[in-house]
Amino acid sequence: MTENGVSPRAKVLTIDTMNPTVKKVEYAVRGPIVQRAVELERELSEGMKKPFAEVIKANIGDAHAMGQQPITFFRQVLALCSYPELLNDSTFPEDAKSRARRILQSCGGNSMGSYSASQGIDSVRQDVAGYIERRDGGVPCDPDDIYLTTGASDGIVTMLKLLVCGEDETRTGVMISIPQYPLYSAALAELGAVQINYYLNEEKCWSLDISELQRALDEARRHCNPRALCIINPGNPTGQVQSRECIEDVIRFAAKERLFLMADEVYQDNVYADGCHFHSFKKVLFEMGPEYSNTVELASFHSTSKCYMGECGFRGGYMEIINMDSEVKAQLTKLVSVRLCPPVPGQALMDLVVNPPQPGEPSYDNFIKERTATLNVLAEKAKLTEQVLNTVQGISCNPVQGAMYSFPCITIPEKAIKEATDNGQQPDMFYCMKMLEETGICLVPGSGFGQRDGTYHFRMTILPPTDKLKILLKKVKEFHQKFTEQYS
Amino acid sequence: MTENGVSPRAKVLTIDTMNPTVKKVEYAVRGPIVQRAVELERELSEGMKKPFAEVIKANIGDAHAMGQQPITFFRQVLALCSYPELLNDSTFPEDAKSRARRILQSCGGNSMGSYSASQGIDSVRQDVAGYIERRDGGVPCDPDDIYLTTGASDGIVTMLKLLVCGEDETRTGVMISIPQYPLYSAALAELGAVQINYYLNEEKCWSLDISELQRALDEARRHCNPRALCIINPGNPTGQVQSRECIEDVIRFAAKERLFLMADEVYQDNVYADGCHFHSFKKVLFEMGPEYSNTVELASFHSTSKCYMGECGFRGGYMEIINMDSEVKAQLTKLVSVRLCPPVPGQALMDLVVNPPQPGEPSYDNFIKERTATLNVLAEKAKLTEQVLNTVQGISCNPVQGAMYSFPCITIPEKAIKEATDNGQQPDMFYCMKMLEETGICLVPGSGFGQRDGTYHFRMTILPPTDKLKILLKKVKEFHQKFTEQYS
Repeated sequence: MTENGVSPRAKVLTIDTMNPTVKKVEYAVRGPIVQRAVELERELSEGMKKPFAEVIKANIGDAHAMGQQPITFFRQVLALCSYPELLNDSTFPEDAKSRARRILQSCGGNSMGSYSASQGIDSVRQDVAGYIERRDGGVPCDPDDIYLTTGASDGIVTMLKLLVCGEDETRTGVMISIPQYPLYSAALAELGAVQINYYLNEEKCWSLDISELQRALDEARRHCNPRALCIINPGNPTGQVQSRECIEDVIRFAAKERLFLMADEVYQDNVYADGCHFHSFKKVLFEMGPEYSNTVELASFHSTSKCYMGECGFRGGYMEIINMDSEVKAQLTKLVSVRLCPPVPGQALMDLVVNPPQPGEPSYDNFIKERTATLNVLAEKAKLTEQVLNTVQGISCNPVQGAMYSFPCITIPEKAIKEATDNGQQPDMFYCMKMLEETGICLVPGSGFGQRDGTYHFRMTILPPTDKLKILLKKVKEFHQKFTEQYS
Repeated sequence: MTENGVSPRAKVLTIDTMNPTVKKVEYAVRGPIVQRAVELERELSEGMKKPFAEVIKANIGDAHAMGQQPITFFRQVLALCSYPELLNDSTFPEDAKSRARRILQSCGGNSMGSYSASQGIDSVRQDVAGYIERRDGGVPCDPDDIYLTTGASDGIVTMLKLLVCGEDETRTGVMISIPQYPLYSAALAELGAVQINYYLNEEKCWSLDISELQRALDEARRHCNPRALCIINPGNPTGQVQSRECIEDVIRFAAKERLFLMADEVYQDNVYADGCHFHSFKKVLFEMGPEYSNTVELASFHSTSKCYMGECGFRGGYMEIINMDSEVKAQLTKLVSVRLCPPVPGQALMDLVVNPPQPGEPSYDNFIKERTATLNVLAEKAKLTEQVLNTVQGISCNPVQGAMYSFPCITIPEKAIKEATDNGQQPDMFYCMKMLEETGICLVPGSGFGQRDGTYHFRMTILPPTDKLKILLKKVKEFHQKFTEQYS
């Protein structure tokens, strides 16, 4: 009996009686270290004394939160779509108005408040197809193969959901890179699929070796049914940009081994290193000829959240599916209809990303100026991050060729490893947590993404403004030196 | 070998090798009849001759698509949040600006383009809690129990996901009303949970009888583990509004039988019939005293998509969870973090719904005028629909007390039933498809929601503008008479 005389009823839903697959899900990018960062921010705001004045979050690719400004044109069109009265406002440029009119005409009742088709607004899918054709040098794209999504995560989970079947030794296995973006491991855990790890080659700038794919696949075939291969290019968390040759090899491998390819290409505009270029899987596939382009099943994912726009909060995205069996495609269309539609403002934003101002339009010059400035600053910060980290003894950082992250290897002294292990903590979690408490810098331990046993890393975004990034890198350096001394 | 000399490779992903639970998913609201309606619209636009000039869609609760106008204040604030330059525009009212400033101050980098906390923006959750407290006559609400969602569907699926476990006879069973909203059956099919049907009492205006709940539960206990009870109030597709007594009985039943309660309350402002009032499960639970309020586990769902705002496209919503085990709650928070966050524009809109203009603020009068007008028109159309349908011999329609739908019982002649069955079609699908082809009216057959064997229904929204609704009802009447004659 409790104090008020009521006997407590046992809960229906407890940790022991809840969905066991949900319990297995982990998502380090918003894990315990980030929760502690939020607490620290609150403590600071309540006046508690800390060894730092502010928490700097370099844990997540959240560009606007780090001060990146939105593209003016995109926001003008979104405002016009939200409140069409503004179409009468002469201060808005004509190209913004014409984009807004086109989007609204595609909405039921000319309102973003209407549901769209579950696959996404027709005209937006047409614009996405046009964008892909231009990007891929004329390789044709059918708007019917485009599905708009609630961010790329939504599309990736939906595709994985279609692929999972079988029990025990016939259970679907999905190959993912290690290090990986933990959406993949989380989705596979929730779906009860088998995660097949292939390791990227840190010595060769996180490149992908076909021999390693083969090793991972052969091993996995002993205990599951490998059916899909996921690639993130440019890489998250590792920042590499794959060569065209590598992509061809991967496609040949997928064809030979009968694997469904999933290409996570959300960082397609984020390429900084000299000599690196983004090659879409779609384009390479089609340039390899009909033996491949008629057969290899491919889903490619894009998003409004990254690149130069960084509009994460709108949850916009699309996927393109190639060579999907038509019956399966009908099932996909049915499946997405249950959730009605992706958010329409995110669809509108996706439309602007694939159909930005053109030469001769009033907003063109400013659009190019804003986009170039953002990408240039990112390229500078990618270089700065690599350079500074590599000046620290015990930290070794590959070039940040693309995406928004560095993933340096850190040497953790034996004593620190022991103290962490004694506390039941991963050594790099121990390291990052200590850094957070002492410096206010929030990074994500490498163990949240996966890494070779006995190696330790952290993921750090390159997104803080340059002046703050410099402070951050200096603090990381000082912390690492102090930590190393303390535990040597 | 194909024409171009390439031997087709067997697909990795086929209808036989895809996820079998996905195949079981059905969602009638956007099913084959709606696909045919879209085709017909295209055919009409291409100039094909049809026995009708336009397709009228009364299949889905999509208010703006049917011409309902958005609330001006909401859209002003969304425009301000999208393009904060407009904060300098003197034509926007001050209360809209202050709402926009508050929302933007809660966003990282003051941008809707930033990710929010996965549970939703803090200040929005505080405003939701304030709204619930006012709505429920002061029953306290903790913002920490609020999770913002991507529409109500997202919250419902997430809660069901937590609840599902066990195999065979211990597999989780979930009780849903028949007729039901097919999101529930679709989610249960995908999760592999057992759907337990309890039938609403059509003779008593779709009321819920506890004896029927008991019957369904007792039967289900023989083959699964019933753990949750879902209620939709006001009802979808059936339009009833539950009495306070009924809600008390349901809560007592859930307590006695140890069931987790899920209350889908997205139509909480859509109550039209005299003497009917919306009673939230939360309020009734707390007024029943600590024996219940301290123990019964409840999740309640709301949305920006229905009521007077009808903003479906923004995919905004929230859920409130009561008495959830703290460890399970931590798992819930982790689970939602994998998808990063609900769309921020939808969160902003949810904020406005729970914190609309107040007396004395410049937008108050116009807000009240717009809201009242929309709800009054809906009430008129609810009455009109019931009245006209009941003038048709062979159609019997309960009062549309609330929500946005009528769900009349239709008499289908034996000959038509035979013809449908011979074609492998549900008789009401046969009926609705014929109506679509002959009149251009798109309704959803009752079989898509579930109904007692041997009875037939359709769901029709009350959303078309009054003049169009009158035409629609007239056409339904004529079609039904003709159909009945033809098959008698």
